Amino acid sequence: MKALVYHGPQSKAWEEVPNPSIVDPTDVIARVDTTTICGTDLHILKGDVPAVTDGRILGHEAVGTVTEVGSAVTDLEPGDRIIIPAVTNCGKCSYCKVNQPSHCQTLGGIGWVFGHLIDGTQAEYVRVPFAETSVHRVPEGLDDEDVLFLTDALPTGFEIGVLNGRTQPGDTVAVVGAGPVGLGAVMTSGLCGAGRVVAVDMDQNRLDQALELGATDAVNASDPDAIDQIKALSRDGLGVDVAIEAVGIPQTFRTCLDIVRPYGTVANVGVHGKPVDLPIQDLWISNVTVTMGLVDCSTVDKLLSMVSSGKLEARKMATHRFGFDQFEEAYDLFANAADHQAVKVVISR
Amino acid sequence: MKALVYHGPQSKAWEEVPNPSIVDPTDVIARVDTTTICGTDLHILKGDVPAVTDGRILGHEAVGTVTEVGSAVTDLEPGDRIIIPAVTNCGKCSYCKVNQPSHCQTLGGIGWVFGHLIDGTQAEYVRVPFAETSVHRVPEGLDDEDVLFLTDALPTGFEIGVLNGRTQPGDTVAVVGAGPVGLGAVMTSGLCGAGRVVAVDMDQNRLDQALELGATDAVNASDPDAIDQIKALSRDGLGVDVAIEAVGIPQTFRTCLDIVRPYGTVANVGVHGKPVDLPIQDLWISNVTVTMGLVDCSTVDKLLSMVSSGKLEARKMATHRFGFDQFEEAYDLFANAADHQAVKVVISR
Repeated sequence: MKALVYHGPQSKAWEEVPNPSIVDPTDVIARVDTTTICGTDLHILKGDVPAVTDGRILGHEAVGTVTEVGSAVTDLEPGDRIIIPAVTNCGKCSYCKVNQPSHCQTLGGIGWVFGHLIDGTQAEYVRVPFAETSVHRVPEGLDDEDVLFLTDALPTGFEIGVLNGRTQPGDTVAVVGAGPVGLGAVMTSGLCGAGRVVAVDMDQNRLDQALELGATDAVNASDPDAIDQIKALSRDGLGVDVAIEAVGIPQTFRTCLDIVRPYGTVANVGVHGKPVDLPIQDLWISNVTVTMGLVDCSTVDKLLSMVSSGKLEARKMATHRFGFDQFEEAYDLFANAADHQAVKVVISR
Repeated sequence: MKALVYHGPQSKAWEEVPNPSIVDPTDVIARVDTTTICGTDLHILKGDVPAVTDGRILGHEAVGTVTEVGSAVTDLEPGDRIIIPAVTNCGKCSYCKVNQPSHCQTLGGIGWVFGHLIDGTQAEYVRVPFAETSVHRVPEGLDDEDVLFLTDALPTGFEIGVLNGRTQPGDTVAVVGAGPVGLGAVMTSGLCGAGRVVAVDMDQNRLDQALELGATDAVNASDPDAIDQIKALSRDGLGVDVAIEAVGIPQTFRTCLDIVRPYGTVANVGVHGKPVDLPIQDLWISNVTVTMGLVDCSTVDKLLSMVSSGKLEARKMATHRFGFDQFEEAYDLFANAADHQAVKVVISR
């Protein structure tokens, strides 16, 4: 088969590799029908994730069709269309049992293994471990693009942003950073009843996209009075209830601390490369909570029901489409997403 | 009357001052029967709290008896014995309405006013604003010492440590810092069903006190392998579910980050004087939550019912007793609490 293989920093190739085969009885093999690219893939290509080594097939998001099942698999069979989420759930360790597979102990303490510790989904076929506890069937009537972004961007925005932020009906939620995961938070804030969803970014196109995808307000972070503008949009001017950090740099983390009201939550979603300063000499008295985390993909079933009922138009994240022979073009475009007004790319057979 | 008056850094005096009188219709005047000293009072005396100015009567914890009531007070009358908590609740601002008086907007955004923004409780009499929404009656059968520490140390340890830490039945809770508030967390962890309560301190006497007050284990923080010892006490060796920071310095905050398991909570209780480094480059993936806050005293009624039923022996915090003419001695001892194996002092008429 062909697959997109990592060959060290800045180097990847769509090349011939052996087909995957069943290793453990709980595996399935799936034909990848549709996949996409995540910001994390770009980090890997920069060499920022040393656990990814030469020869690794990239990608951790896919919709596929089961082609082969392991001997312990009883509820999936060849031909089943499945959503393959970014995080694998062994179903039986102390973390997976309580639906926190981000820290699956069977997998070494981290549930994100595709395109990281094992071969990924940017390939014609993929081996899916612990398939029955990890994947979801595609409901009748939904196509690949309807469900593709339930594999990572939407549950990350929802679980690590909106839910960690303890969003309540009527809350003002600010989403700092309107990239795909930030937009995932924008799109799902309403599911928790957010009263106002303020998108914050330096790029006007991204702010426009956020407004189209459900933000009620947009503030350009490059405005000198951006902090005041955001606070003015809160119920009583004291700050937002939930500040979702979806960039991953010290400045935007600080912005979140500056705009959150006493008793509010800063929900960090961004992948950070260096420490941040926590001004706890001011914050100890603030009753502010800071949350951090990797997605569990524990809400995929719930989000799926929202897609089925039309309450969540997940496919709206798709802005550009490519075939499997166009991985290079897809990566080039996604790496310069802002220039192309791109949110997520769809790569299909 | 006589009162303990602040006269700038390092300076205080037990001196004659005018008696307090009713200012607002929701005030009561109370005779102070019993009061105590908080670590915050020592900070004030160091000059660390500039909002406290020359002439301010110190103290924010007391048990007293109502002597006079304002015209709007209908449920309290002279002779009623009351618990006067550290935090005042106006009952009608956006924060107090949802039981978050730590950020009372009527009082300027902070509910801690006694001995800070208005005259305090280390006096023969005190004016108590918003009395009916702030104070609690002393139940029949309990004496002052039974309930005195419900004014601050116990609710702070419980609300900002145990509850913010989301302590669940069976959890391993580490309390870093076994001073009065840390011991308040130790004493109340069991109310949430903590399975194991690990006291961590550099002082062996304090560790012994923690063991007497309910800790199941004690680790001396000066042991080179203290972190490993604490983690070894957790269910599966991965770290504690809840790490309560009750010191307020960067080293102990870092200890909490080092001992907490993925998906655990660091509940900061300590009053910090400088920023801390948050290693978010490692933590973003950890699903760890950091909480911070000032007490609301919103659980005083619940703690009181635990005292009444014998489930919480609040008076066990009292180690030394003084009369009102011994404030100097009481402060001297409390400022050197570790040398005297002191936890809390009781100062009574």
